[in-house]
Amino acid sequence: MNLLLLTRDDLVPPDRACIHDSRRLRHLHEIHRASAGEELTVGMTDKGIGRARLLELEKDCAVFEILHLDTPPPPPLPLHLLLALPRPRMLARSLENIATMGVKRLTLLHTARVEKSYWQSPELQPERIEAHLRLGLEQARDTILPTVDFQPRFKPFIEDRLPGTIAGHRALLAHPGVGESCPRGLPMDSPVTLAIGPEGGFIPYEVQQFQALGFEGIHLGPRILRVETAVVSLLSRLF
Amino acid sequence: MNLLLLTRDDLVPPDRACIHDSRRLRHLHEIHRASAGEELTVGMTDKGIGRARLLELEKDCAVFEILHLDTPPPPPLPLHLLLALPRPRMLARSLENIATMGVKRLTLLHTARVEKSYWQSPELQPERIEAHLRLGLEQARDTILPTVDFQPRFKPFIEDRLPGTIAGHRALLAHPGVGESCPRGLPMDSPVTLAIGPEGGFIPYEVQQFQALGFEGIHLGPRILRVETAVVSLLSRLF
Repeated sequence: MNLLLLTRDDLVPPDRACIHDSRRLRHLHEIHRASAGEELTVGMTDKGIGRARLLELEKDCAVFEILHLDTPPPPPLPLHLLLALPRPRMLARSLENIATMGVKRLTLLHTARVEKSYWQSPELQPERIEAHLRLGLEQARDTILPTVDFQPRFKPFIEDRLPGTIAGHRALLAHPGVGESCPRGLPMDSPVTLAIGPEGGFIPYEVQQFQALGFEGIHLGPRILRVETAVVSLLSRLF
Repeated sequence: MNLLLLTRDDLVPPDRACIHDSRRLRHLHEIHRASAGEELTVGMTDKGIGRARLLELEKDCAVFEILHLDTPPPPPLPLHLLLALPRPRMLARSLENIATMGVKRLTLLHTARVEKSYWQSPELQPERIEAHLRLGLEQARDTILPTVDFQPRFKPFIEDRLPGTIAGHRALLAHPGVGESCPRGLPMDSPVTLAIGPEGGFIPYEVQQFQALGFEGIHLGPRILRVETAVVSLLSRLF
């Protein structure tokens, strides 16, 4: 945790915040070894970063006076990520990495090689998703929660919804052996939609559907990466 | 597992291989659903990739006839990676990623912010290290095991050994806030040494020591990444 990230629920107007959850409290006690009177860097979810003074630190609560929140978080990636729903354990780590790297819009998508059972995983509960995203934001010292939507039906999504969402975007399809080598250092002011398949990849029909919408195939060379590694590798190459 | 990677111990001269371990057998039975007579792609550790015919598949062994091994593995990265010893759980995942991405030379290094207890971890046993590296190779369809050496004393390493090993290399030090933005797309025929610090980073004295040897500071922007993410991100940007 490189940033203590406050939520709206922590706020006690006009200028106090109070946290009760064991995770952040443990961090204050054990890692930060904070004590009352100390100033800390804090962020407010979906707002800025600034300083707060720790007024009280008990076993079960910490009370802060927020001094200011006027530093903007690091710039987001200009990216809409379409990710075939990974297996639950991999989803958790991928969500953390996605938030850490600055993705602000994520669509989790069903494809032919996504096991249907993954859609029943408790990891898809909104509070679980948000918990992983928060870990990623705290790591990167970011405050802006990504939005996540679920598309459990491939065909209606790609036929009816995707054409509208990629208007004005450069649309890229990461798929081993298709198209060109992944581009490098894209401009941060041009929106990109990037589709990443499941373990085993997209099936040929899906690749055709994306290509028919204008997606350019890109690849990372002969090595096949795990999905969570591919996400980091693609984002690091592209931006 | 995208490649069944054989070891020297599996070989039964002149042209047979026999595997007994539950991990690879389970893969053949459950994922690959292989059956006798079938041809499979196999790799031989530190040699090439080719085809083998499955002669027998039992619960506790599989026997292959090796048909050929004449395809070279994917090209390695021209990189010597110096990595401050990560915490054991992160080491395991980092080793897998390092092998998957094609690093062939890894030095695990002590620095001021590496906890001394990490050097006692059972994860540092050679067979544990090799097991993680093999998982990474199987993922990437590579056969060449990276070499790993341990440098539990920073000062003698950096003063006496490192100057010789970086001769002819471009030497890079990944450290938040130091130097230039991480370069992109370096040539694959020029050797690079890349140093990556522990959680919390190198201390100023260590940064100075590296810089005195000619290491260029590079960074990935304002976001602080976990070590395992930083490794993938840096390698993906550099090559």
